[in-house]
Amino acid sequence: MSGYVISISREFGSGGRRIGARAAKLLGIPCYDRDLIQKTAEKSGLSPAFIARAEARAKRLLPLGVQLRGPAELQAFFAQSEVILELADQGPCVIVGRCSDYVLGDRPGCLKIFIHAPLADRVSRCAEEYHLSAPNIMDRVREIDRGRASYYSRHTGRPWGELRRYDLALNSSATGIDGAAELIASLARMKLARQTSDREL
Amino acid sequence: MSGYVISISREFGSGGRRIGARAAKLLGIPCYDRDLIQKTAEKSGLSPAFIARAEARAKRLLPLGVQLRGPAELQAFFAQSEVILELADQGPCVIVGRCSDYVLGDRPGCLKIFIHAPLADRVSRCAEEYHLSAPNIMDRVREIDRGRASYYSRHTGRPWGELRRYDLALNSSATGIDGAAELIASLARMKLARQTSDREL
Repeated sequence: MSGYVISISREFGSGGRRIGARAAKLLGIPCYDRDLIQKTAEKSGLSPAFIARAEARAKRLLPLGVQLRGPAELQAFFAQSEVILELADQGPCVIVGRCSDYVLGDRPGCLKIFIHAPLADRVSRCAEEYHLSAPNIMDRVREIDRGRASYYSRHTGRPWGELRRYDLALNSSATGIDGAAELIASLARMKLARQTSDREL
Repeated sequence: MSGYVISISREFGSGGRRIGARAAKLLGIPCYDRDLIQKTAEKSGLSPAFIARAEARAKRLLPLGVQLRGPAELQAFFAQSEVILELADQGPCVIVGRCSDYVLGDRPGCLKIFIHAPLADRVSRCAEEYHLSAPNIMDRVREIDRGRASYYSRHTGRPWGELRRYDLALNSSATGIDGAAELIASLARMKLARQTSDREL
């Protein structure tokens, strides 16, 4: 395989979505995020609303932490995984979330990124960016992260955020949004340069 | 505090020591690694051989995983921590290992880095770099990592290699030695630029 695919996992409020979009812009490649739902709909014949609902349901914990994974959720997950693999086959791109690090597995061209930030910074960012002002915004951020962790571990069988699963994990409070995008773009360029020199050997 | 200190934690065979030295060279700052033992000796009055022995002892697990932490080990650890804090006060530098991420704690200028790589790559690197050719080299690499994990958790009370403790965690097989050093140097420059713009506000 030539080229690369960048998979970005991110804590809520860490700026991961914006970082993914900027890194893609720096590299001149597409970035797929929420539009994966539309593409999954086209692929599977399921409606976008149905897929979004299945995803939201998958991120919700029932009381006492009981987790259910119904056939609708599995169907949506498999269809989405197919879409991710097809996009990766089409050429370099950035894919945000959706367990894409797991779905892309050990593809040699896959660069796995994890973006995190201290909780207090993520709460401030959410208040600003999503115009959230509820008094319980910190609880909401934690709840969404728990949902992402639950979704990830249910579909992959692994805990969310294990350091050794990622080629690059970074604290966006240390780098800033632009800085994080630059580091990711640098890593992608290194990967390309190494692929080229390997081919020349 | 102005400036920054880079703390590098690393899996055995990931190239962390060389990466630290190259990042320091790119930034024009000193890198402290094994020479910390000599400095600790000067500081504490303990002999370098004594400190090296205490450190080696601290990384050894007794049968059944029993861990002992004697007064000699604690004395060496505290003296070493003092040396790390003094070096950080003197100006920008790179410090490799020695729980420096924990010792430097929440200093605003501290950049915490973790270097890892797949086990197979680390085994190849060790065979090459340290001229190790024993048939049980993989066991040896694992044993040294267990020692580092044990040393870290005994002195800090935390598991070794938690993703969210590090500003930048990277897989040196994806970046190469030079690439990793470049990413770390870029992060340090970003940190400096942000400190400068904060002061100008």
